Amino acid sequence: MAGSKSRCLNSISQVLLTLLILRCLQCHSRPHSYDSKPLSEISKEIFKYSDIAQRIINLAVYGKAQNRSYERLAEFTDTVGNKVSGSKNLDLAIKYMYNALTWDGLENVHLEQVKIPHWVRGEESAVMLLPRNHTLAILGLGSSVGTPPGGIEAEVMVVESFEELKKRASEAKGKIVVYNQPFVSYGETVAYRASGASEAAKVGAVASLIRSVTPFSINSPHTGWQWYQPGVPQIPTACITVEDAQMMVRMARRGQRIVVHLTMGAQTLPDVDSYNTVAEITGSKHPEQVVLLSGHLDSWDVGQGAMDDGGGVAISWEALSLIRDLGLRPKRTLRTVLWSAEEPGGVGAAQYFQQHKANISNFDLVMESDLGTFSPLGLQFTGSDKARAIMKEVMKLLAPINVTSLEEHGEGTDINMWMKAGVPGASLHTADQRYFWFHHSDGDTMSVQNPEEMNLCSAVWAVVAYVVADLEEMLPR
Amino acid sequence: MAGSKSRCLNSISQVLLTLLILRCLQCHSRPHSYDSKPLSEISKEIFKYSDIAQRIINLAVYGKAQNRSYERLAEFTDTVGNKVSGSKNLDLAIKYMYNALTWDGLENVHLEQVKIPHWVRGEESAVMLLPRNHTLAILGLGSSVGTPPGGIEAEVMVVESFEELKKRASEAKGKIVVYNQPFVSYGETVAYRASGASEAAKVGAVASLIRSVTPFSINSPHTGWQWYQPGVPQIPTACITVEDAQMMVRMARRGQRIVVHLTMGAQTLPDVDSYNTVAEITGSKHPEQVVLLSGHLDSWDVGQGAMDDGGGVAISWEALSLIRDLGLRPKRTLRTVLWSAEEPGGVGAAQYFQQHKANISNFDLVMESDLGTFSPLGLQFTGSDKARAIMKEVMKLLAPINVTSLEEHGEGTDINMWMKAGVPGASLHTADQRYFWFHHSDGDTMSVQNPEEMNLCSAVWAVVAYVVADLEEMLPR
Repeated sequence: MAGSKSRCLNSISQVLLTLLILRCLQCHSRPHSYDSKPLSEISKEIFKYSDIAQRIINLAVYGKAQNRSYERLAEFTDTVGNKVSGSKNLDLAIKYMYNALTWDGLENVHLEQVKIPHWVRGEESAVMLLPRNHTLAILGLGSSVGTPPGGIEAEVMVVESFEELKKRASEAKGKIVVYNQPFVSYGETVAYRASGASEAAKVGAVASLIRSVTPFSINSPHTGWQWYQPGVPQIPTACITVEDAQMMVRMARRGQRIVVHLTMGAQTLPDVDSYNTVAEITGSKHPEQVVLLSGHLDSWDVGQGAMDDGGGVAISWEALSLIRDLGLRPKRTLRTVLWSAEEPGGVGAAQYFQQHKANISNFDLVMESDLGTFSPLGLQFTGSDKARAIMKEVMKLLAPINVTSLEEHGEGTDINMWMKAGVPGASLHTADQRYFWFHHSDGDTMSVQNPEEMNLCSAVWAVVAYVVADLEEMLPR
Repeated sequence: MAGSKSRCLNSISQVLLTLLILRCLQCHSRPHSYDSKPLSEISKEIFKYSDIAQRIINLAVYGKAQNRSYERLAEFTDTVGNKVSGSKNLDLAIKYMYNALTWDGLENVHLEQVKIPHWVRGEESAVMLLPRNHTLAILGLGSSVGTPPGGIEAEVMVVESFEELKKRASEAKGKIVVYNQPFVSYGETVAYRASGASEAAKVGAVASLIRSVTPFSINSPHTGWQWYQPGVPQIPTACITVEDAQMMVRMARRGQRIVVHLTMGAQTLPDVDSYNTVAEITGSKHPEQVVLLSGHLDSWDVGQGAMDDGGGVAISWEALSLIRDLGLRPKRTLRTVLWSAEEPGGVGAAQYFQQHKANISNFDLVMESDLGTFSPLGLQFTGSDKARAIMKEVMKLLAPINVTSLEEHGEGTDINMWMKAGVPGASLHTADQRYFWFHHSDGDTMSVQNPEEMNLCSAVWAVVAYVVADLEEMLPR
């Protein structure tokens, strides 16, 4: 009996174990259960959201929420101004948004603490002394060291590429290297801003001035973060205008000696406390599962940050307001995160990732709008083929506003680590031909924004986020 | 006999008188003798210039003069910088051009003295203190008075039109009037820059800040001349950026109190001596008759004046060089005039008109390029119907570069008085969609210019000037 009983118990325990394993597999595979479902069925499920999508669009584009994201952004921007990492203005911006999101009646509004860089520009100026006196419009680059108090006066060496700098390395000692690299694309050309100083320092330069990374200029300098390479002397570095870089290369080609006096009071102060700002609509069925919408709250210390990334902030807030206004509550949680300190390299978002990555299996889709909120053209998406196929169906819901395109390469400094870890990611692609004209310059103001375009962006953001958060299953990975 | 002799003498004297009158009429009607010639014959005459036109085009666009006007302008601009009326830089520019035209081997190079205004900007700044602290980018307007040394601090009243200012006149006393007029066209909208200060002063304002007259901005202020009306208090006035004007109108609509602190060190010093700079190719048959080509040498004290009006200067010089290079000498004199002090309202050109108007019957055609030297679209022309018909034939010679359009309304501050007095006038129309983006701002630099486009402009300028100067007759009036 014992034997029989033992066998019987053994059989029962085997069955239980099998059930347990199956249950476990089911549990773990639940986020991927769309894997086995035919797309035609998923399409039908998504098609049922047509009415809801239309209601969201109507509210955002034609209804009482018309122009709301623009008006909110205008009031926020006009009240706070720019808000660079580490500044009191960024603290003000976070408080403003915390209060605004709370007052708007969103759920679980809270702040999540992070440490962020505190670089300050100080007084800065550059004057070309030879071949003639000319004041250069400059903007020191984030993380740059300053000059000695009296500034640096040195002859200029103009190069048009890193290759030219290497070839002419022997000429660089004691010089201010001016990079007049052509604008190819932001992704490619920003290398000069990011590492121009260290490359120049390696060959003995005392400072570097970098042509602003923009395809168009009205003598407008554009700032941005730069990175010193380890073990390389840290030299002061700033952007100059396209116009002045082009002038100096003409002078150099004529064999004229160029001398510049550069003064920069830039310094890096100790890191400060800051916060990622969070608001939610809690999911009705799977509150632990998250569709994350985001933009970053910090900006540069020039311009107003209305475009980079006020627009992304505004539509990530607006999307939740629209869904709430319609009395909708998706199965999963919609979470808007307004990142702190994106400009120094996604600093706030990197800490968020560390704080939340243990929960990565519950992140359904991460979205960021940080490329402008002009007229929307489509959604850039990173994810598996099956997830892409599903997202294409979701985008069809935006046919009423003709924004059905699903493109490659979801991107966003603040969501990249999630995508690298396998979470599907999406970014908003808008008619951004002029984005880099204003980017990181005094031209980043509310005048760049257009209420009608922001209505459309908000509608796209809300429809995508809501539908993905409400589908039967999470997006497959 | 006496009687017979007397009658005989009388008859002879009558014949002589008649001949004299006829000769005189012929003499006076000579400039108009195309009046009676059929257009078909004139067309044939003009058509014979096809080869010469092609040679000019070849030299300017494809030959050894390719890019010369651009290179000359670049070297001039890079050497001198900007050159505002009354400045030492304008003196330098005149000397530079006198030497360059002489060195180029042009004829009768000389300077003609004029008196010009000497307004200086001084230090200037504007800070919005309420509802938040924000530095306004400003440019004081030419002829503006300064503020008291400590500046002016006052509440702002934002209006969007002169009509609104009049309706709300009772609110203006003691305020700084901010004009946020929309950009309609330069011709229409510049009224706010030109007379915004006096209109504001009439209703008791203490200063006026005017939205820059441009359809596009990267937070770029644009300066320009303004005129105080007689008997109206003279208040300080400056342009602000489109962005800041739009921000302040948003704040005003929200009912927010706006306070600005404005400091301007502007002052008008005594007039100074200056010169219109002249170079010629003397006519072979009618050296006293003139086709005048022109641009103005002065600029604003911001930017480099490479566009306004470096381009016009460069092609008006280049046209003569091209004709000289080809060994051509037209029947009439080609005269290039580089005006002094156009920006304060055509001051140098007005004195030139006074100095030369006695000779007006010998002015065949007056040309000015002061609207940009982008890709040429055609020639704007003011003149009689017959003159227009002839000019249309001349423009056909430019078919090889597809610039055959003859448009209405020749214009140019420096040639308007000649046209009003009946002299045919022409101005260059180019693809100037972005002209006012840069106009009177720091964005007016060599980066605006394109060598290929300037080649084409030079060819148009040279062909038109040469052919008109070489025709059998002057243009009819």
